[in-house]
Amino acid sequence: MKLLLISNSTNPGEPYLGYSQAMIGEFLGKKHIKTLFIPYAAVTFSWDDYELKVREKFREAGHDVISIHHFTDPAEAVRKAQAIVVGGGNTWMLIKMIRDNKLVGPVREKVLSGIPYIGWSAGSNVACPTIRTTNDMPVIRPSSFRAFNLIPFQINPHYLDANPEGHAGETREQRIEEFIEVNPDLWVAGLREGTMFHVEDGKMRLIGPRKARIFKKGHEPIELGEADDLSFLLK
Amino acid sequence: MKLLLISNSTNPGEPYLGYSQAMIGEFLGKKHIKTLFIPYAAVTFSWDDYELKVREKFREAGHDVISIHHFTDPAEAVRKAQAIVVGGGNTWMLIKMIRDNKLVGPVREKVLSGIPYIGWSAGSNVACPTIRTTNDMPVIRPSSFRAFNLIPFQINPHYLDANPEGHAGETREQRIEEFIEVNPDLWVAGLREGTMFHVEDGKMRLIGPRKARIFKKGHEPIELGEADDLSFLLK
Repeated sequence: MKLLLISNSTNPGEPYLGYSQAMIGEFLGKKHIKTLFIPYAAVTFSWDDYELKVREKFREAGHDVISIHHFTDPAEAVRKAQAIVVGGGNTWMLIKMIRDNKLVGPVREKVLSGIPYIGWSAGSNVACPTIRTTNDMPVIRPSSFRAFNLIPFQINPHYLDANPEGHAGETREQRIEEFIEVNPDLWVAGLREGTMFHVEDGKMRLIGPRKARIFKKGHEPIELGEADDLSFLLK
Repeated sequence: MKLLLISNSTNPGEPYLGYSQAMIGEFLGKKHIKTLFIPYAAVTFSWDDYELKVREKFREAGHDVISIHHFTDPAEAVRKAQAIVVGGGNTWMLIKMIRDNKLVGPVREKVLSGIPYIGWSAGSNVACPTIRTTNDMPVIRPSSFRAFNLIPFQINPHYLDANPEGHAGETREQRIEEFIEVNPDLWVAGLREGTMFHVEDGKMRLIGPRKARIFKKGHEPIELGEADDLSFLLK
């Protein structure tokens, strides 16, 4: 299985997919690949616009994208895909559309068969067992919270350490502590902005300048970085 | 109907229920009231501890609380309540427990009959038609997103204007823009910390030093404060 799970599309002051673009190109390999793009996380902009924006960045990296909304049979498009790319936006809308189009099974099977999967933000969240570590507002109700289950742990994308000054709402760490209290068997990885997980051949590593913060009920949070082997999370 | 819907329990550097305590006392009136407390939003601390903490603050304000978890028949406890108080925490756990205990109907009927309702944070969110404007992590899946529907609009508690510096995730305003895109018929009120809505006799006003930010699809966001009549949101 080949996964590239990216925390966020854009770092402040950088271009769209800036920090991940070179890694995306390398991950997809030297042969030109036309990836299948899933744009369903878009809420306030169109799927066409989303496709154009992503296509530009993928072409610069030596590859291409076509969005799934151009196909009359989306599941068939998945079965024929060379690679699957899931963009960020609203996780709730994304999983609702994935489920309504009955794509959970086809995407999972196809990625388990070996084609590359790239996701960022909401697109990384749906690679997890469920979407229950999303940061997004539940603007719409999906038929289930279950997602592609490509990895056995939960990612919290856009992980951040502090609230804005003077804000009293729960910190992200407090929110994840609630999650592990209710779900004591699951590991959760807080994936800070500017970083990504690379999974291949049963191994996982972090890429990027910030460590991931790893949580499980009964454990002190662990900080792991580029030098560490994170493969235990795949067990 | 009498509602006091509070954004957050605690401002930075202030005691628990600090800024709202005097208003809670006044809202419940001069006669001593033993309120029924719903502690289900607690995830990482016990219902007993939550009750003790809230009881102390209510007693200082001239009233008392007893938590619903002491009753073998929670719906019957609601039907006999003099006032209902719903504390903050995790909105998903709160609505799950409310629904599992079949309290949506009983609480709604009781509050429509005239007894006071006080909620803060998650407790304000469940006064809305649904919980779809929560900020919380969906650590558990409720049977439905529908809530008490005491008001016809959505509150976003802990509303804040900015992300921490250098963080690229969606701002709260962007999240609410997604909500109104998907739910164009609903008004959403961003209720900033340190403020609350007071509803009585079909009128609504804001109490506190910061304005509320009001959103609806097709409208520019509106800022309304203590001097403004917010009753149109109840229509």
